[in-house]
Amino acid sequence: MSEFDDALSLTPTETPGTYEARLDRSWTIGGGINGGLLLAVIGKALSETLGAGGHADPLSITAYYLAPGRPGPVTIETTLVRKGGSVSVGSATLVQTDQEGNRVESIKVLGTFTDLDRAPTDVDNRIEPPQIPAPEQCVRSTDAPPESLKGAELLHRTELRLDPATAMWALGKPSGKGMIQAWMRMADGREPDPLELLFACDALPPASMDLGKPGWAPTIDFTVHVLGKPAPGWLRLKHYTEHIASGHFVEDCEVWDSEDRLVAQSRQLARLPR
Amino acid sequence: MSEFDDALSLTPTETPGTYEARLDRSWTIGGGINGGLLLAVIGKALSETLGAGGHADPLSITAYYLAPGRPGPVTIETTLVRKGGSVSVGSATLVQTDQEGNRVESIKVLGTFTDLDRAPTDVDNRIEPPQIPAPEQCVRSTDAPPESLKGAELLHRTELRLDPATAMWALGKPSGKGMIQAWMRMADGREPDPLELLFACDALPPASMDLGKPGWAPTIDFTVHVLGKPAPGWLRLKHYTEHIASGHFVEDCEVWDSEDRLVAQSRQLARLPR
Repeated sequence: MSEFDDALSLTPTETPGTYEARLDRSWTIGGGINGGLLLAVIGKALSETLGAGGHADPLSITAYYLAPGRPGPVTIETTLVRKGGSVSVGSATLVQTDQEGNRVESIKVLGTFTDLDRAPTDVDNRIEPPQIPAPEQCVRSTDAPPESLKGAELLHRTELRLDPATAMWALGKPSGKGMIQAWMRMADGREPDPLELLFACDALPPASMDLGKPGWAPTIDFTVHVLGKPAPGWLRLKHYTEHIASGHFVEDCEVWDSEDRLVAQSRQLARLPR
Repeated sequence: MSEFDDALSLTPTETPGTYEARLDRSWTIGGGINGGLLLAVIGKALSETLGAGGHADPLSITAYYLAPGRPGPVTIETTLVRKGGSVSVGSATLVQTDQEGNRVESIKVLGTFTDLDRAPTDVDNRIEPPQIPAPEQCVRSTDAPPESLKGAELLHRTELRLDPATAMWALGKPSGKGMIQAWMRMADGREPDPLELLFACDALPPASMDLGKPGWAPTIDFTVHVLGKPAPGWLRLKHYTEHIASGHFVEDCEVWDSEDRLVAQSRQLARLPR
């Protein structure tokens, strides 16, 4: 089983719609579990609950982050909100237990799921695919200085190849443009699917790095729209911000598959590092 | 009291966090209550609940639409999910009763609220403001053919002045660009505030009109990010789509105030009219 599918392994509980999972330390970045991985775990749980009605693929999913996800056991509580003909809507809460044994709700989610194989196939996309040099001409994230890799176990789960033109922030020379582009695939060769796209949309460092604002940029809310099943092979990611105000920034990610199709778009509001 | 504030008038019930309101027929478009007005009503309820902790302004708010909102009484159930230092998170459900007396959940919402007056004032915005001719050189929505105004009572609540270059769809000549730009203000002169921005982000016809796809484009999910309090005067709206796939389209709205500031951005996924 791939590392990603292992992370998304759920155990049903006696309560219908409630699942247990284990968040492995290997998905941490800066002490917390990566937010995209958490969204994929919740997406898997909603896929189980809504998939019973034929709608197992995420179309829209939104997470509001309340507390950092920590390694260890986790419970995902899902509810079928509405079952429709072509889509179903669900809600979910990710729950952990703190050191005193208190219930901590870490993430609240709403999602609309569908059967992407039955969706219309017409595509009309006016967004230009990102231009990135071939993977072998890009910068490997694992080539980062050892001090940067400390506490970034997540970087070993994926193969990230950063566009050199958008990676100068890693050498202390942010471009100020607020954009990071990269190729991505799972380190163990797992091929992408809709749940992996939820992870991919938050797999890159925050675009604030390229604004000369290093540091933690906690996500307020995060929505992913999955508009197609990805073809096998490398994903191309474009992660950027164009708008910083009121101490926050609006950050978009585009995920393109190996056949040049824009298969997912995400937007998050994140707090600008202080 | 302005028509908009009247629509947002809430009556607290005996259940803490639960409010009653009345959706007036004058906010309908095509038989249902406008989705942005519904979001503003829910936003007002969350503002009451989270405002008690000092966070009365929407920063992020996301709605998943389950059933059309109908004129008549409505209940908004809100919950404080997490109270933080600079932001608080809440959830809400809009409930109506159908003709058989059954409870119908129409909208599920998550939101993060703050105090925008205490937010950092630095702005770094790389998005160009839309170029629209002066309001007096634009097309009044109320100049539309009488048959278009039938069932569009909403159009009398706002003054919309459509950029002529993006309004040809109204004459049966869509540009195919998928963009509609307009000036907007409330017909009774109410000045904009953060709650009105929630409405403004969904006040224009769907961008699919300009793709030659007239008809109802139901919203799946809708997120508004409010990044500043608007100055008095006209708002400028840019409503557009660049990506249509799997029978849906990703639609963005930018709201600019009279001082050329981008005060809100929204994104929704909507179903392409058939």
